[in-house]
Amino acid sequence: RKRILITGGAGFVGSHLVDVLMRDGHEVTVVDNFFTGRRKNVEHWIGHPHFELVMHDVVEPYMMECDEIYHLASPASPPHYMYNPVKTIKTNTVGTMNMLGLAKRTGARVLLASTSEVYGNPTVCLKAMQSIAFAITVPLRRRCPYVHPQPETYFGNVNPDGPRACYDEGKRIAETMCYAYSKQSGVEVRVARIFNTFGPRMHIGDGRVVSNFIIQALQDQAITVYGEGLQTRSFQYVSDLVAGLIALMNSDFDEPVNLGNPDEYTMIDFAKHIKEITGSSSEIIHKPATQDDPQKRKPDISRARQVLKWEPKVSVLDGLKRTIEYFRHELSAPT
Amino acid sequence: RKRILITGGAGFVGSHLVDVLMRDGHEVTVVDNFFTGRRKNVEHWIGHPHFELVMHDVVEPYMMECDEIYHLASPASPPHYMYNPVKTIKTNTVGTMNMLGLAKRTGARVLLASTSEVYGNPTVCLKAMQSIAFAITVPLRRRCPYVHPQPETYFGNVNPDGPRACYDEGKRIAETMCYAYSKQSGVEVRVARIFNTFGPRMHIGDGRVVSNFIIQALQDQAITVYGEGLQTRSFQYVSDLVAGLIALMNSDFDEPVNLGNPDEYTMIDFAKHIKEITGSSSEIIHKPATQDDPQKRKPDISRARQVLKWEPKVSVLDGLKRTIEYFRHELSAPT
Ligand SMILES: NC(=O)c1ccc[n+]([C@@H]2O[C@H](COP(=O)([O-])OP(=O)(O)OC[C@H]3O[C@@H](n4cnc5c(N)ncnc54)[C@H](O)[C@@H]3O)[C@@H](O)[C@H]2O)c1
Ligand SMILES: NC(=O)c1ccc[n+]([C@@H]2O[C@H](COP(=O)([O-])OP(=O)(O)OC[C@H]3O[C@@H](n4cnc5c(N)ncnc54)[C@H](O)[C@@H]3O)[C@@H](O)[C@H]2O)c1
Ligand SMILES: O=c1ccn([C@@H]2O[C@H](COP(=O)(O)OP(=O)(O)O)[C@@H](O)[C@H]2O)c(=O)[nH]1
Ligand SMILES: O=c1ccn([C@@H]2O[C@H](COP(=O)(O)OP(=O)(O)O)[C@@H](O)[C@H]2O)c(=O)[nH]1
Ligand SMILES: O=c1ccn([C@@H]2O[C@H](COP(=O)(O)OP(=O)(O)O)[C@@H](O)[C@H]2O)c(=O)[nH]1
Ligand SMILES: O=c1ccn([C@@H]2O[C@H](COP(=O)(O)OP(=O)(O)O)[C@@H](O)[C@H]2O)c(=O)[nH]1
Repeated sequence: RKRILITGGAGFVGSHLVDVLMRDGHEVTVVDNFFTGRRKNVEHWIGHPHFELVMHDVVEPYMMECDEIYHLASPASPPHYMYNPVKTIKTNTVGTMNMLGLAKRTGARVLLASTSEVYGNPTVCLKAMQSIAFAITVPLRRRCPYVHPQPETYFGNVNPDGPRACYDEGKRIAETMCYAYSKQSGVEVRVARIFNTFGPRMHIGDGRVVSNFIIQALQDQAITVYGEGLQTRSFQYVSDLVAGLIALMNSDFDEPVNLGNPDEYTMIDFAKHIKEITGSSSEIIHKPATQDDPQKRKPDISRARQVLKWEPKVSVLDGLKRTIEYFRHELSAPT
Repeated sequence: RKRILITGGAGFVGSHLVDVLMRDGHEVTVVDNFFTGRRKNVEHWIGHPHFELVMHDVVEPYMMECDEIYHLASPASPPHYMYNPVKTIKTNTVGTMNMLGLAKRTGARVLLASTSEVYGNPTVCLKAMQSIAFAITVPLRRRCPYVHPQPETYFGNVNPDGPRACYDEGKRIAETMCYAYSKQSGVEVRVARIFNTFGPRMHIGDGRVVSNFIIQALQDQAITVYGEGLQTRSFQYVSDLVAGLIALMNSDFDEPVNLGNPDEYTMIDFAKHIKEITGSSSEIIHKPATQDDPQKRKPDISRARQVLKWEPKVSVLDGLKRTIEYFRHELSAPT
């Protein structure tokens, strides 16, 4: 039985991780400031002798003795992380430093929940292309060369000064910190680059595409596609991610590992798909595109297959059905 | 007369900035932990009623009242910033946050000394190329497409987990922080992306190419070129940089601005050049290439020319002559 700290454990992904680790018989401590998480997500464990829920902000130092740290504390959806960019940066920099300091002191192993956002918009930057000496002619936006799918060896194309930077650059430096503490102080680190994940306990109001589309469809409101809707995402169901995180924590592999489902959709097709599954009569409308929105995203998961023997098991369709059930229930529940 | 804080003001660039701002009649406070800087660089001002030298580490909060902050505190040469990567990260993250907090409280304007390293190795990552769907055939390393020269709009190609990441990613997130505090709290920020700079008061032992080559040449020791020596750098003389920093601070422009001299050399040619100017009998030898060494670097300075009416005035040859004089004197001085 291990003593496990989960930061951000009252959030969407964290609470599912709590469930599995508790069922496996471990002692689990959740540290969360309830910025986007909620007590309700883990309340079924409150009172269990192996479970502890601590309201604490990781930007402040934290002391405990443990064997493993799953460091998930960070807002994850664009509206949440852009709500207070300075705080997002502090959480990812100082918060991660505190967890690495704790690990250094206790000898705990740390898993960082990094993100596919470290790859940014995985294209050769268009403006930059103009100054490429080598002659590549890219007459049309669509024909722009993409690094697709994204392997862990790709260094990314992130705007360090754009609206998403507080999160993207925050996670990049959090990774850098992990390897600095590893090299310098022997802290054992694991880095998961998580691709878009969905499932029950996603926040109703977090503005992510899966929750937005499902809620809009269930309420027969217009489904809002940002921009033309030709940008893509690849969606994994939360139980697959949790299995991947645990496999990675328990592996001997310390380089970054992509965890995602390569099943890729354009946002316009995804809107149609959700409309169909829900049997909704919503119309699909377009809203303005958002700045720095990555145009393509799909994980290359060869590394996870090879080193973790992991791959996603739940199809997007099955996952969506379960998630739709969850939201149907949430929407009908009295508040 | 303005009250000006210069962090890292006892270092190479900072001390030259102190000289100009003091001569312009301002009140200057230097905050420095003397990690790579030294008292000697500013000792000619000690005792002046408008000058203050404070030994303090920017990772700890700092309080003072001022109008402007030139935030230069950070080791700058690869051997120095790799010496303690965790500390380099703390200086660039927590240190920058403290200066932005100070600026938020006092209303001071902050100039961040960022770096051309935010561009990393400005090529389409070779490993990534293999997975680009679009067919670009790059048979030879040399024919790899480079973003060259580097404009401010280029998002860079930085390895977030490599040996240089503590500095490169540290500066990227420092920029992100500047814009987050600017947007959220109205802090006035200026971001200078500084390209390789040289001149008197460079550290004898800092391992940078200019100091290494000059010292080797002056002592008739082997001049050490890392790798084949076909990688390039573009060198600016320190007085040009200082003029650019002051122009940027006093401008109305808040986006990043490259400051550098586009005069570009391969390292092998640079070695020959220095050998010639010094009249040295050193032989030129090759040492192993270093990991993640950017292969090309040259600033696109159109933005600085346009918004600051700035451009470098000192030729590399003139600058080198002055620097060689400095090192000749340092080497002959009794220690
Ligand atoms: N869900 C995804 O699609 C996805 C994709 C990539 C990466 N991730 C990463 O996975 C992790 C979990 O994401 P999620 O989808 O469960 O998001 P979430 O918002 O549901 O969970 C994040 C949790 O962290 C807590 N938190 C935030 N700041 C904190 C702070 N300063 N101190 C303590 N607790 C804090 C929140 O209250 C919340 O409970 C995040 O680190 C996120 O970046 C998620
Ligand atoms: N010289 C260049 O070619 C170059 C290129 C790009 C960017 N820069 C940037 O310009 C700035 C100055 O560089 P430099 O060449 O003068 O280097 P330097 O090493 O001579 O000066 C840095 C100064 O910062 C001080 N310092 C470091 N960490 C500190 C901390 N935690 N608290 C307080 N002081 C601290 C050092 O003691 C030193 O005096 C740096 O931010 C560097 O990243 C320099
Ligand atoms: O059990 C611990 C040990 C350290 N830290 C914090 O982790 C950070 C980084 O730790 P490190 O050992 O690198 O910092 P140092 O104490 O050396 O500055 C510090 O700010 C500590 O306050 C923590 O929160 N819990
Ligand atoms: O109501 C919405 C919400 C999101 N999106 C798009 O869906 C994709 C995924 O957005 P999300 O916020 O879920 O996560 P991201 O992957 O961008 O972090 C992006 O291209 C968004 O522009 C959309 O079209 N409509
Ligand atoms: O004069 C000041 C004001 C603030 N800070 C530090 O700057 C950091 C960031 O300031 P901010 O206002 O964002 O932080 P907050 O106090 O809101 O956490 C904090 O850690 C402060 O300790 C400082 O060093 N000097
Ligand atoms: O003794 C030396 C020191 C550096 N370099 C090369 O010179 C360039 C500039 O290195 P420096 O450390 O001065 O600064 P950087 O621009 O890499 O931060 C790099 O390509 C190094 O590999 C070299 O060939 N010999």
